[in-house]
Amino acid sequence: MDLITIRDLYRNKENYIGKTIQVGGWLRSNRDSKTFGFMILNDGTFFETLQVVYGQDKLSNFQELTKLNVGSAVIVTGELVATPDAKQPFEIQATEVFIEGPSSADYPLQKKRHTLEYLRTIAHLRPRTNTYQAVFRIRSLIAYAIHTFFMERNFVYVHTPLITGSDCEGAGEMFRVTTLDMDSLPKAEDGKVDFTQDFFGKETNLTVSGQLNGETYAQAFRNIYTFGPTFRAENSNTTRHAAEFWMIEPEIAFADLKDDMLLAESMLKFVINYVLENAPEEMNFLNQFIDKGLLERLQHVVNSDFGHVTYTEAIELLEKNNDNFDYKVSWGCDLQTEHERYLTEQIFKKPVFVTDYPKDIKAFYMKMNDDNRTVAAMDLLVPGIGEIIGGSQREDDYAKLLSRMKELGLKPEDYQFYLDLRKYGSTRHAGFGLGFERCVMYLTGMGNIRDVIPFPRTVNNCDL
Amino acid sequence: MDLITIRDLYRNKENYIGKTIQVGGWLRSNRDSKTFGFMILNDGTFFETLQVVYGQDKLSNFQELTKLNVGSAVIVTGELVATPDAKQPFEIQATEVFIEGPSSADYPLQKKRHTLEYLRTIAHLRPRTNTYQAVFRIRSLIAYAIHTFFMERNFVYVHTPLITGSDCEGAGEMFRVTTLDMDSLPKAEDGKVDFTQDFFGKETNLTVSGQLNGETYAQAFRNIYTFGPTFRAENSNTTRHAAEFWMIEPEIAFADLKDDMLLAESMLKFVINYVLENAPEEMNFLNQFIDKGLLERLQHVVNSDFGHVTYTEAIELLEKNNDNFDYKVSWGCDLQTEHERYLTEQIFKKPVFVTDYPKDIKAFYMKMNDDNRTVAAMDLLVPGIGEIIGGSQREDDYAKLLSRMKELGLKPEDYQFYLDLRKYGSTRHAGFGLGFERCVMYLTGMGNIRDVIPFPRTVNNCDL
Repeated sequence: MDLITIRDLYRNKENYIGKTIQVGGWLRSNRDSKTFGFMILNDGTFFETLQVVYGQDKLSNFQELTKLNVGSAVIVTGELVATPDAKQPFEIQATEVFIEGPSSADYPLQKKRHTLEYLRTIAHLRPRTNTYQAVFRIRSLIAYAIHTFFMERNFVYVHTPLITGSDCEGAGEMFRVTTLDMDSLPKAEDGKVDFTQDFFGKETNLTVSGQLNGETYAQAFRNIYTFGPTFRAENSNTTRHAAEFWMIEPEIAFADLKDDMLLAESMLKFVINYVLENAPEEMNFLNQFIDKGLLERLQHVVNSDFGHVTYTEAIELLEKNNDNFDYKVSWGCDLQTEHERYLTEQIFKKPVFVTDYPKDIKAFYMKMNDDNRTVAAMDLLVPGIGEIIGGSQREDDYAKLLSRMKELGLKPEDYQFYLDLRKYGSTRHAGFGLGFERCVMYLTGMGNIRDVIPFPRTVNNCDL
Repeated sequence: MDLITIRDLYRNKENYIGKTIQVGGWLRSNRDSKTFGFMILNDGTFFETLQVVYGQDKLSNFQELTKLNVGSAVIVTGELVATPDAKQPFEIQATEVFIEGPSSADYPLQKKRHTLEYLRTIAHLRPRTNTYQAVFRIRSLIAYAIHTFFMERNFVYVHTPLITGSDCEGAGEMFRVTTLDMDSLPKAEDGKVDFTQDFFGKETNLTVSGQLNGETYAQAFRNIYTFGPTFRAENSNTTRHAAEFWMIEPEIAFADLKDDMLLAESMLKFVINYVLENAPEEMNFLNQFIDKGLLERLQHVVNSDFGHVTYTEAIELLEKNNDNFDYKVSWGCDLQTEHERYLTEQIFKKPVFVTDYPKDIKAFYMKMNDDNRTVAAMDLLVPGIGEIIGGSQREDDYAKLLSRMKELGLKPEDYQFYLDLRKYGSTRHAGFGLGFERCVMYLTGMGNIRDVIPFPRTVNNCDL
């Protein structure tokens, strides 16, 4: 159907003022006096709405139209007229209104403001509200900005697998994947489940990270990134955890921790700029109704040179404020959100990279520093949220990696492919992980991860 | 590190000829006479390689360099010199070669040509070969082309969920997701597994399609698309089936089957053009070594107006050739690949949409035609492969959808959210599904799906 979009009307109104056009959309409101009616129409293509004026004189179905409920779908034909004195720049004066699909009186989205909690119970309808129109368009724009950032820099997008036969990293928090009949499981001689009869001939789980696979491609294409779903079967019911979420994990070869931080900083700035440029209406709405300081905070991030501080220095800075922390810090401890936010908000007053963490609180694959007690890791902390990105240079020395794995009780035979990379043309390389939903929360100001995922999966919740 | 990429050298050589530059990469080959050596370097950023000339006079580590194995990583400094008489446009004359990481003699990728079967056994190393460099760069470009196509048209990218509580569509072929201890399952009173104790409090599976969820967002944003993994626990070991693959599923509101076909045709042409423009070296290689007719076939697709034929007409055309088919056709039967290819290759000699299939061989949600025996479905068939896209207009009438569901024995209470869309401002709408891997196979000429997925998952195969 050749309908003009409301986006097009707003962006190119000079093409349409004074012309007869056809627009399709859903009613946000509908009111009438005896001879005139006014519909507010949203067509999903644009955050702003279009006012439709319809009169009894021109429309044979006038009475029927006045009875249309909120949510109804209509196709309107009429002249677009400039309205210089009104809040909106134009309106459409209808010569025909075709009822595409009426909405019934029990429509769960009435004109009044609903709570986010209530809207979560109608995940299939909530994208029709202002807040979720803004959030999910921005989510989409962020995804594209990320792809664009990496593709413009000639990175290769790699789809790492979701189902994995390795349960090396955090088995306890993984979802098992199986096609065995749970009510009648085949048993092996030892009485345990016989997974050789399962679909893949062995135990399989949903991945928690694509990084190790990603590294194999970085050693072939130099610069790669992944962007796909990851899963965590964590039994934690917080505003920041979901069982299913998306991750971006770039990996760069012939690169060290400095290159890694430069990449992370450029990427985050690129994404913020992209959203500010491409969704001004949505961002203004969120700034006004969801998170008052949002725009200012993001502008500040874009205009800052990110700070850098080692973990050891950061601990010294934080110890001075130990009286005010719930968890006291000391060298060797993991940083809590309160510490991270204090560092970025109070001390640096801008985004800051914390580097060179104690090896004991970081993963086995991170490159050991010369001091043999810290690793070349980095976390990026941002005001308002704390950690948003975590990365590291990877251990590229075969012997060191092997000995670190043994030290931690990992079985080298489970990582043969990973060790191979250190045997056949190993290069310095680094990478990081960005939790996509955390990024969406950060850019939209939304406080609950359930509100930035179309159909969120959390403990005891897998609806629709 | 400020290394010049080989891509940059080839694309902007005028900036570098005569200058001293630094390049990092992996050895494809290394040979030497007594005083001179020649390395062929690939750095993963570009399909073509760079020749490095290194001499005993300038390099103190000359002897060490001559012993480097294929696969070694080096960083070369030297002058880029034009070589107008050689096959390659330039070479680098090394003043320094730093050995970033040597490769051992047992490197599984020697200079000789390996079979694809062998390379499948080293999924972590095969992207270093020409064929997989081409395939996986093109895979990445196709993904970006798809995102770009939809984003330029203001579609919203929606992440539909992977873990689903609905087993409505094809339960038998789904993977179960669980955190229950398989060796000690909790039982309910009836002796069956008690899934209320599972992570989500009920039975969950991996999704086979995001379409139904996608439709809810199309009724909010008008035009949306999904691009994410889907899963099929089909026990079929063919060259075209994987247990885990990616799907693109656009959904458009205020749109009918014609709009849907127009969208599919535009998208496919856009993607092909994008790849031809952005990966000429890779496409030429594939055309030469993998699939001789590839470029001609794709050019033909781009330059054709796709054909249109109804299923009923197609059956009439095919019946004339029944003697030559393994499976004879007659009205009501599903089309096999041999029939699809005959239609598109022999009869139409170009891509063709087959429309209006019998309702009994299509899904419940497809819009019933007025004849009450066919539905507004379409499959796009392309030469060389058969079906590549399948779509339909959706049933948007509440009563008709409900009665069709009951006819097929589906429980309306399982689809309440889906029925709601037909109750609250229903619109004509349509969509289609494109199997991403099938698209990659089509554009690269690769014949086995295991060769277009970085780490493929198939029956009894979940390595790395």
